[in-house]
Amino acid sequence: MQLHLSTWPEIESYLQHSKAILVPIGSTEQHGPIGLLGTDALCSEEIARRAGEEGGFLVAPTFNVGQAQHHLAFPGTLTLRPSTMIAAMTDWANSLRRHGFERIYWLNGHGGNVATMNAAFAEIQHGSSINPGHENSPTLRCSLRNWWELAGVSETIRELFPVGEGNHATPSEISVTQYLFPQAVKYADFPVRIAPSGPIFDAEDFRRRYPDGRIGSDPTLANPAAGKRLVETAVHSLVREFRNFAGA
Amino acid sequence: MQLHLSTWPEIESYLQHSKAILVPIGSTEQHGPIGLLGTDALCSEEIARRAGEEGGFLVAPTFNVGQAQHHLAFPGTLTLRPSTMIAAMTDWANSLRRHGFERIYWLNGHGGNVATMNAAFAEIQHGSSINPGHENSPTLRCSLRNWWELAGVSETIRELFPVGEGNHATPSEISVTQYLFPQAVKYADFPVRIAPSGPIFDAEDFRRRYPDGRIGSDPTLANPAAGKRLVETAVHSLVREFRNFAGA
Amino acid sequence: MQLHLSTWPEIESYLQHSKAILVPIGSTEQHGPIGLLGTDALCSEEIARRAGEEGGFLVAPTFNVGQAQHHLAFPGTLTLRPSTMIAAMTDWANSLRRHGFERIYWLNGHGGNVATMNAAFAEIQHGSSINPGHENSPTLRCSLRNWWELAGVSETIRELFPVGEGNHATPSEISVTQYLFPQAVKYADFPVRIAPSGPIFDAEDFRRRYPDGRIGSDPTLANPAAGKRLVETAVHSLVREFRNFAGA
Amino acid sequence: MQLHLSTWPEIESYLQHSKAILVPIGSTEQHGPIGLLGTDALCSEEIARRAGEEGGFLVAPTFNVGQAQHHLAFPGTLTLRPSTMIAAMTDWANSLRRHGFERIYWLNGHGGNVATMNAAFAEIQHGSSINPGHENSPTLRCSLRNWWELAGVSETIRELFPVGEGNHATPSEISVTQYLFPQAVKYADFPVRIAPSGPIFDAEDFRRRYPDGRIGSDPTLANPAAGKRLVETAVHSLVREFRNFAGA
Amino acid sequence: MQLHLSTWPEIESYLQHSKAILVPIGSTEQHGPIGLLGTDALCSEEIARRAGEEGGFLVAPTFNVGQAQHHLAFPGTLTLRPSTMIAAMTDWANSLRRHGFERIYWLNGHGGNVATMNAAFAEIQHGSSINPGHENSPTLRCSLRNWWELAGVSETIRELFPVGEGNHATPSEISVTQYLFPQAVKYADFPVRIAPSGPIFDAEDFRRRYPDGRIGSDPTLANPAAGKRLVETAVHSLVREFRNFAGA
Amino acid sequence: MQLHLSTWPEIESYLQHSKAILVPIGSTEQHGPIGLLGTDALCSEEIARRAGEEGGFLVAPTFNVGQAQHHLAFPGTLTLRPSTMIAAMTDWANSLRRHGFERIYWLNGHGGNVATMNAAFAEIQHGSSINPGHENSPTLRCSLRNWWELAGVSETIRELFPVGEGNHATPSEISVTQYLFPQAVKYADFPVRIAPSGPIFDAEDFRRRYPDGRIGSDPTLANPAAGKRLVETAVHSLVREFRNFAGA
Repeated sequence: MQLHLSTWPEIESYLQHSKAILVPIGSTEQHGPIGLLGTDALCSEEIARRAGEEGGFLVAPTFNVGQAQHHLAFPGTLTLRPSTMIAAMTDWANSLRRHGFERIYWLNGHGGNVATMNAAFAEIQHGSSINPGHENSPTLRCSLRNWWELAGVSETIRELFPVGEGNHATPSEISVTQYLFPQAVKYADFPVRIAPSGPIFDAEDFRRRYPDGRIGSDPTLANPAAGKRLVETAVHSLVREFRNFAGA
Repeated sequence: MQLHLSTWPEIESYLQHSKAILVPIGSTEQHGPIGLLGTDALCSEEIARRAGEEGGFLVAPTFNVGQAQHHLAFPGTLTLRPSTMIAAMTDWANSLRRHGFERIYWLNGHGGNVATMNAAFAEIQHGSSINPGHENSPTLRCSLRNWWELAGVSETIRELFPVGEGNHATPSEISVTQYLFPQAVKYADFPVRIAPSGPIFDAEDFRRRYPDGRIGSDPTLANPAAGKRLVETAVHSLVREFRNFAGA
Repeated sequence: MQLHLSTWPEIESYLQHSKAILVPIGSTEQHGPIGLLGTDALCSEEIARRAGEEGGFLVAPTFNVGQAQHHLAFPGTLTLRPSTMIAAMTDWANSLRRHGFERIYWLNGHGGNVATMNAAFAEIQHGSSINPGHENSPTLRCSLRNWWELAGVSETIRELFPVGEGNHATPSEISVTQYLFPQAVKYADFPVRIAPSGPIFDAEDFRRRYPDGRIGSDPTLANPAAGKRLVETAVHSLVREFRNFAGA
Repeated sequence: MQLHLSTWPEIESYLQHSKAILVPIGSTEQHGPIGLLGTDALCSEEIARRAGEEGGFLVAPTFNVGQAQHHLAFPGTLTLRPSTMIAAMTDWANSLRRHGFERIYWLNGHGGNVATMNAAFAEIQHGSSINPGHENSPTLRCSLRNWWELAGVSETIRELFPVGEGNHATPSEISVTQYLFPQAVKYADFPVRIAPSGPIFDAEDFRRRYPDGRIGSDPTLANPAAGKRLVETAVHSLVREFRNFAGA
Repeated sequence: MQLHLSTWPEIESYLQHSKAILVPIGSTEQHGPIGLLGTDALCSEEIARRAGEEGGFLVAPTFNVGQAQHHLAFPGTLTLRPSTMIAAMTDWANSLRRHGFERIYWLNGHGGNVATMNAAFAEIQHGSSINPGHENSPTLRCSLRNWWELAGVSETIRELFPVGEGNHATPSEISVTQYLFPQAVKYADFPVRIAPSGPIFDAEDFRRRYPDGRIGSDPTLANPAAGKRLVETAVHSLVREFRNFAGA
Repeated sequence: MQLHLSTWPEIESYLQHSKAILVPIGSTEQHGPIGLLGTDALCSEEIARRAGEEGGFLVAPTFNVGQAQHHLAFPGTLTLRPSTMIAAMTDWANSLRRHGFERIYWLNGHGGNVATMNAAFAEIQHGSSINPGHENSPTLRCSLRNWWELAGVSETIRELFPVGEGNHATPSEISVTQYLFPQAVKYADFPVRIAPSGPIFDAEDFRRRYPDGRIGSDPTLANPAAGKRLVETAVHSLVREFRNFAGA
């Protein structure tokens, strides 16, 4: 059940039996020579949508531009300042709280979002925590889950790509988008099969270290069949995890 | 050509021959008993996508939560504070400017966004305007266009719905989503065919005046065939308008 | 009745019978070769003051610097960032709400303010709309009115200046300030009688397109008698409109 | 010479021979039973205007709502948050700097503004100070002057009101507005001639301690003749001081 | 009693009998050729600590970076923007209010902090003052005290350093740090015994006027014995003043 | 070498041979029945100070109040909003960059700071990354290191406290403060030896789940000798790590 494909009376009904919602969150940033700029948003959006259908729970629109400052030297990357992202996530959460939601499960598709998301959670809670005497109002809980850490997914990744998974523009995430968007499978020459690894500093330095955008990965391993397996595993676990969270 | 389904080298190539991009922008807010919460984002997203295919230009991901404060009394509505929306639009625009884009065409799906969008444009320009000696840097131009004001569209709306178009949850926008999302066509009883009209103040007052969320409209007139005609008219005009804007 | 020429006990008395106040708002920005930098603030201030006297209602001090980013290439122009203007208008409104005012009528003198003012209204309302359970507190209503759109004024303008009114530094607003400030009537040579028209982008581009600051207007048509007629028409309508608003 | 009664070409000319401008700044806040809410803005505005005429220098519009948080329990008081005031003063200063002004003399009419104004000066300077390598750009200087501290003014006050001057709603400032606005001279019974003195904490506490709004003053001593003398003394000194500042 | 060397149950006990706390606040900024960068924070921290021991009251951790914009041209200086300092002080105060504290005594070690601190106090109070109907909640009082203005201290300074005290990098504050940190007594050649005096504008200008960082002072007069006397005088007065404040 | 115990000429000299500095960062928050409120700041401050002496590098004052929102239900806890913490860290970093520092090593003492610190790093970098053409300015690198993750430290912790280390108010951090502050060793009855474990949501919920503030730990195991070993191990590793970072 997708919020943006529902009417307000349908949401009013949903709130009669559940106070929980899932928000997919990603990033729009370079993913190397053959990875899509929307990879992180598309993966969490589609895994969430399928799980929402299967599990009968509500899925919000996707928070599709996140924290991608260190990818800015590659065209197409969009980023929020962390302070903007905190303000925007706070507004989304407060809108949901206003309607009676008490559990927000953020399904994340981008490792670089994790820090700012956790900071945003503290900002969201700060408002009520700082006021004495707020103890009786219903509380809001936010939970962050990276899709590749859902039960069984990382094991599947290790099995599929024992070598070359790397850290950015990985064959696993590219496999997922190849499965989901067969019309957008890309090709490129890879003079170096496995990209270099190392630290991340600012945007210019990033492009000097990782000239084609990958970190430690071999995207040529990606294939739609692997993507299908990853999506199915993730969806299966997500249905179960969300149910636990909603009832917690 | 959709940015999120492209790779960064594809965007780098695109920038060789064009500095213009389209950003669809909408809102996630109640649209009456049978209108979808995502109507405003979905309409501009899909019209933009089709025009981008036809016209060979670049379309960014959709800015999908906008300014919907006065719809907050209806469950499912999400809103940014205007100050947050200004910050977020500024970040999107600055990311694009950093890559060399000089023209951003914002295709808007929500009348309630217009004021904050124009405020954001001034905020985006402020940074460079306030500095003496910036005259030689390439300038950025932002343009706002509501899809229902594209050439021919409002005429078509008047022809299709001479009575009952109204101001919110209109048969025209609902027709568009019925055409685009046949799986999400909704039904409801309408004791009153044409909703009341009047002013908008705050959220509680809005729901008291317009108890089912509509303003002045008769959504029962909506039909997929009308939606198809509207989409085709809008796409046709958008291709031409964007081309002019890109070359301006 | 002007707030700044009143004492607090007088305001306390006023609040016994009315919860409505008028705030004049303008801009300090170039108005071409003979228009005053303060035109937009002075027009709304003086029309408001006279209407307040005639109608016996309360007029606040003038919000005299507004949104003038695209005039920054002309000396003397002052502007707030839109985000600052939203914060300041919010502070004014919250101060008034704190005293018990429930209706704020903003009489605007600058078209460029409209977007940011409407954004500010949404920001002002956001605070209470986002909190569940605020339904019982008295609500605040903000209303925006451009003085040239008061009943009868635009008709008078069309009659007085059928040609050459244009869009910026118009003979109508200059007539008003010539009538109000006879000591500040200015003269200049106008090699081109009617200024060019066109779009507005950033500040530098504005000055290149409109080198003397006017858009589409012929300020040589301005005269104090026309100003007198415009002021009287505006004052007359404003008294009636404000009364309706106050009682709404 | 008042900026808002000038045209942009006049300001462009002015900048040929002077980079200095005066900004009057005040507050809109309760001034006891017979003091005007606009006292602080009106005093600095009018002293500045007269000095600008006499000394031939430029005077900006008045920053008319300032820092009045602790007067909020009295109707009619308007206040900015300090953070908003800092943002707005920064925008005014940056607009002036953009045109080439290098000296801003803020003539202040409200003691409660002093702290936030000095904080704003540091915020204004921060932007350039924090960047290495900005040493060659022309610098901006802000100066704060309370009108009652201009040479000769405090001596005159002590002579005129050896007893009962007090700290808020003083006979000196009320004398000035009685002189400037004879149409707005107010009367009230004063059961207590000299108001109590003491500390200032928050707004509610202020009204409990100082029930009619005065602190330590006896406004019944105010008279237009005293106001005339104070204005003339202040104008005289201001012309000289501004000249020194402009040439510094 | 230092908060950071206490446990939460100890603070819970303390709140049974006192609602007052002292926060030392300073700056990290250049203090001339032999003054420590931490002078302002160290002086208030240590005077507060000793008074807290003697008087049995609670001392918070030190707010150690303040407002030092105009010292930025000297290496080692750290500064907050005034707007950041206001936000941070607000967060500290709100944290304390949340636990039940009602009196915060800020012992200040830096004249340049005073303006921003007072602005912060108004920001802290604004939140409750602006809301109608908050009259019944316990109020928070903030008080600012510069350590050199504690009873007896300025007299002692005048006695110890009748000549050469100056305004920045003074022998009195350097004496205090020499007494407190004998391991950090520094030496330098002083071609000019008494530094020049004058106004403060921006950071670059400051270093041009005061090339070694001092203003009007002769730090060679500093000595640990003088520091001892100043600390003891300050501690003695602080114990008494805090007690009065706590009981007010 | 501590910045606050140095003079500005000493920092100027230091910058001749090194562009690197260490900033200790902690939190002021409850640490259970016998842990100090300042634990997190004190541990990183003192480990940093000792390593700075041993390794001859520069240590800044301690950022002593961090992100402690979920501890707010326990008296004495101080917290910044994440957005404030980002602004303050940005100001510290920009001050250092202004002086020529290019490497900032943040030694962290609080797990709850990690997310907001990483968000702050992205905010700090954003300013330069977003501007095209900044490639030639020297770049700033920020690095975050938790003291308990320094080489050898976690191994030592596991050896010292194979059982009962837990997650908050751990015997290891309490051992460190017992060693460093023997005057502040605290005692309490522990009806339950090992505290419960579980998730963290908002402040009220935290206190309900963990009534004495601990999570999963047995602080009775803490002892000064263990603290000594941990400090020595951490200092030893930190000297080496900082040297690598400074030269990177």
